[in-house]
Amino acid sequence: MLLDNINKASDVKKIKASDLNKLAKEIRRFLIRKLSVTGGHLASNLGVVELTIALYRSFNIPEDKIIWDVGHQSYTHKILSGRKDAFDDLRRFGGISGFPKTKESPCDAFNTGHSSTSISAGLGIAQARDLMGKDYKVVSIIGDGALTGGMAYEALNNAARMKKNFIIVLNDNSMSISRNVGGMSNYLNGIRTANFYNNLKKNVQSTLEKLPLLGKPVIDSIKYTKNGIKQFLIPGMLFENMGIIYLGPVDGHNTMQLCKVLNEAKKLDLSVLVHVITRKGKGYRPAEENPEKFHGVGAFNIATGKPLKEKTKPDYTDVFADKLCELAKKDKRITAITAAMPDGTGLAKFGKLYPKRFFDVGIAEQHAVTLAAGMASAGLKPVAAIYSSFLQRGFDQVLHDVCIQNLNVVFAIDRAGLVGADGETHQGIFDLSYLSCIPNMSIMVPKNAVELEAQLEFALSYNGPIAVRYPRGQAYTGLEEFNAPIEYAKGEMIYEEEEIALLAAGSMVSCANNLRNRLKATAHKCSLANVRFIKPFDKELIDRLCKKHKLIVTLEENVLSGGFGIMAGRYISQNYPDVKVYNVTLPDAYVEHGDVSLLRQSLGIDSESIFKRLKERYGL
Amino acid sequence: MLLDNINKASDVKKIKASDLNKLAKEIRRFLIRKLSVTGGHLASNLGVVELTIALYRSFNIPEDKIIWDVGHQSYTHKILSGRKDAFDDLRRFGGISGFPKTKESPCDAFNTGHSSTSISAGLGIAQARDLMGKDYKVVSIIGDGALTGGMAYEALNNAARMKKNFIIVLNDNSMSISRNVGGMSNYLNGIRTANFYNNLKKNVQSTLEKLPLLGKPVIDSIKYTKNGIKQFLIPGMLFENMGIIYLGPVDGHNTMQLCKVLNEAKKLDLSVLVHVITRKGKGYRPAEENPEKFHGVGAFNIATGKPLKEKTKPDYTDVFADKLCELAKKDKRITAITAAMPDGTGLAKFGKLYPKRFFDVGIAEQHAVTLAAGMASAGLKPVAAIYSSFLQRGFDQVLHDVCIQNLNVVFAIDRAGLVGADGETHQGIFDLSYLSCIPNMSIMVPKNAVELEAQLEFALSYNGPIAVRYPRGQAYTGLEEFNAPIEYAKGEMIYEEEEIALLAAGSMVSCANNLRNRLKATAHKCSLANVRFIKPFDKELIDRLCKKHKLIVTLEENVLSGGFGIMAGRYISQNYPDVKVYNVTLPDAYVEHGDVSLLRQSLGIDSESIFKRLKERYGL
Repeated sequence: MLLDNINKASDVKKIKASDLNKLAKEIRRFLIRKLSVTGGHLASNLGVVELTIALYRSFNIPEDKIIWDVGHQSYTHKILSGRKDAFDDLRRFGGISGFPKTKESPCDAFNTGHSSTSISAGLGIAQARDLMGKDYKVVSIIGDGALTGGMAYEALNNAARMKKNFIIVLNDNSMSISRNVGGMSNYLNGIRTANFYNNLKKNVQSTLEKLPLLGKPVIDSIKYTKNGIKQFLIPGMLFENMGIIYLGPVDGHNTMQLCKVLNEAKKLDLSVLVHVITRKGKGYRPAEENPEKFHGVGAFNIATGKPLKEKTKPDYTDVFADKLCELAKKDKRITAITAAMPDGTGLAKFGKLYPKRFFDVGIAEQHAVTLAAGMASAGLKPVAAIYSSFLQRGFDQVLHDVCIQNLNVVFAIDRAGLVGADGETHQGIFDLSYLSCIPNMSIMVPKNAVELEAQLEFALSYNGPIAVRYPRGQAYTGLEEFNAPIEYAKGEMIYEEEEIALLAAGSMVSCANNLRNRLKATAHKCSLANVRFIKPFDKELIDRLCKKHKLIVTLEENVLSGGFGIMAGRYISQNYPDVKVYNVTLPDAYVEHGDVSLLRQSLGIDSESIFKRLKERYGL
Repeated sequence: MLLDNINKASDVKKIKASDLNKLAKEIRRFLIRKLSVTGGHLASNLGVVELTIALYRSFNIPEDKIIWDVGHQSYTHKILSGRKDAFDDLRRFGGISGFPKTKESPCDAFNTGHSSTSISAGLGIAQARDLMGKDYKVVSIIGDGALTGGMAYEALNNAARMKKNFIIVLNDNSMSISRNVGGMSNYLNGIRTANFYNNLKKNVQSTLEKLPLLGKPVIDSIKYTKNGIKQFLIPGMLFENMGIIYLGPVDGHNTMQLCKVLNEAKKLDLSVLVHVITRKGKGYRPAEENPEKFHGVGAFNIATGKPLKEKTKPDYTDVFADKLCELAKKDKRITAITAAMPDGTGLAKFGKLYPKRFFDVGIAEQHAVTLAAGMASAGLKPVAAIYSSFLQRGFDQVLHDVCIQNLNVVFAIDRAGLVGADGETHQGIFDLSYLSCIPNMSIMVPKNAVELEAQLEFALSYNGPIAVRYPRGQAYTGLEEFNAPIEYAKGEMIYEEEEIALLAAGSMVSCANNLRNRLKATAHKCSLANVRFIKPFDKELIDRLCKKHKLIVTLEENVLSGGFGIMAGRYISQNYPDVKVYNVTLPDAYVEHGDVSLLRQSLGIDSESIFKRLKERYGL
């Protein structure tokens, strides 16, 4: 095995050129074998095996800096930089991350996770290099999907400033997670399918010089101007017009050709874009045929490509999507918006049923939110379904475009709370904070599947901006007997006793129910209330609790600052100074990757840990 | 006066074509006269007089929807839609806003204020129109400066989806507030300066057809393909490649020519971009010569263009910029980043002294923040100077790119707190909330000019992300005798007595000092402490206060949720249940435009109002 000899970044350079294809095959087999057990991002990683090998041969890592946009395609990079033995614990609690982490290896130059950041980060590093008089290389790898994010364009718009070498590798597989959308995608497709431009260019240039129509002075000015006709005639002139040298397109599965163009790119004292055409899922038929499905996978059977565990119960995502499809049947004003996550948000289903009312805008959360605002201002009822950690990108648009005008936009916030294997960058643990501070915003949290349906229906009947936030994964179906109709700003009493009251938000209701059983088992009386509305919260419910309880425990899967518990706690301490308040929240810290139940334990927000904490603190 | 006959939107259509130049002149005189008294955005409005007239003649307003990007160029629109008599109270408390407001007039189709939102909003409105079977027109007006914002590109990338008419007017004056930057600006400049392409296009097209080199099949495929060579040869092919029809460039000061092209644009069932070349400040020589200065002005002398009130004391902006320049002299690792606000942030000065270390990235807060992260990861000490309300755009980047990696980025947050005349969209009243919930972030607030200098110096010596937030306008120079060195997470005791303690953040320290004088005058004892650090806050200082006071009043210019007071209050009620806490914050509401001192009164956060509230509540 060639791979056995690769234990640090420089080892790839020792492989004979004639063995590189063999190495790529070994890496693919390694990835398929390991990921069939641990799960992970398969298709994107299979697509960049040769590209990564070429980068390792063309650059000196870690002296040269490679920045992987999003970062879920960095597995081959992790293998080649000496981490192959850690793949049995990929994305597991305590194991290596599925994303680049500077803490994990000096070869990881910059942490990524969200899309479209790599050119900005790379420009920053390159500027630092130049100002500090150093001469290492900086390479940002960005997918064509990530180019739909406006931030990438902001960075491209600034790349022309570089007076020294800076390399952008465009990893173009015509996919985001799903099929890519929009004008830029059409544009790249034009380059991919129109290789004849390469020949055309030479011909037309020489022809132009012979043209009697134009005359010498015009030809000179054409040659001279930055936006000259020369650049109009080559693929990539969009980038050239922005002051970035364009090289390509190059076959992303030909390692030697990639090395050649990367070595050319290194010589230029400017920003250079190397356009590499790759195939997502390359080398594993099930992934090539179904790259969306193999974007992120759980454990699977290598021979069939089928998941080892079939889903038996629906996810919250399914519950949301099915209910939305049902509501949209009755109300033609309902539209659905996703930022490149038709499968992840469940909206693919909606898109099939109501294609005219379905909008996949690309990885463009900012645009998604303001598009929704525009729709709402003109009489529609848009539902913007965006993951909690990605809606952070649309914070200003929620505040500035939706909420100032008090528009009827429904935010369906999936992946709220702990998400597990994706880790720090994807945990949805800030949304209650960043939404609660926004005037006119209302926020709901369902305790179970049925309540998500009811809250979604309520949201679509409500006038004004309103969010429903629900967790990743299997929908909780307990406590279904408690299903009073949703009323604005009203919570729900589930079990009413005295002494201790648990006031729980969303995913924490089932945890609180377990906690209550533990408390009851140790001879305590305990009430359980379901918050339902984070903002505005139900003061009457709290009044009712405060009259009969000496301790109120708030529970939420969000950080303390700006969350529910601190707001409820303030109300209680101002109005019922004798009632004690205990806030169960997530700590003021980023949360690593790992199984959600392990994370809960390690963070002390499972029912057993909370029980212990309460016993210690209040001598229960 | 022609203007006398214009009292509603349709009246412009009654003006004879031959009188339109006269009307434009009258509007310019009106704007100059009114703004010389009230102040406001002069240069941008002088640039779009003819364009606005042409829009009013070509469309039916308010049935047709006009969305003004940013919106500070909407004055002529306000005049023509029947609001000219309200201009004496422009941007004043209770008067009309300087931005479009749907509440103010049905002619204002969508609220704006921040940059680069209009295409997204317009697309949303146009989609709603089509789904609801209506047939009004939708026009988004966007400046070339706003095109440096990634959100505009996200929207352009989606505009190709339109199957019915949608018009984007690119108001191209080669300026943001300052000179525009970046590749897109170069590109537009290429079009502007290269009118010969219009002729070239015809010539080359007919020539191509005659070329023996290419042959008939290639010519056909060129004509057929979306990204065909035809489009490479016309200006605006960047837009055409994105699936948007391009019309232009058009002289933006020729009303009849504008009407002609707008009427052409109306006929197309697609997204159409009309490229209009205007001159910022047009028709008023001082503004034409100095458009940056006349972007936003106070009252001025019409004859000389000079402000009526010369600045006598420095703003916080000056204090920040001067100190940063001083520090940068000693430490070459310091860089400064602005998102198109070199003048507003004071960094123009830095740019002159240290051009290589100065980065104006365009209206691109997302990129600005991650660029800073990249620089910091490679050893520089970047200072990102961004207004409080604009940093909302970079929220995810602060959280995801800077703070996860705990990078040494200094955020200089100007315009924090109430900003006055710009109103709702520009009030900096959320930053303590959206920054406090982010792990690893530290936040400082200075009480006066000297403390801002000290905190900036401290920030640059600190390891990790740290923000200094300071208000708009004249720097407070009182209490300068209290200037203990800045220590991490430490506040400052100013006057220590007993009974009541005022715990004030930043701009509220001077207010608290006045409040203390009122309390002392009514025979109360009162301490005054300066918070200095919002996060982490000084628990020892609070412990000290709690031991000697029965009431602690927190004061901050931020909303309650996620702010300082609620966090301090929780600490107090958990540890000192007998101590009462009163939180002075801004309400959970957007704050209109108006003089800051009037706003403070109306919101009850001036010392007199707080005094009254305390008296009522605690019977002082």
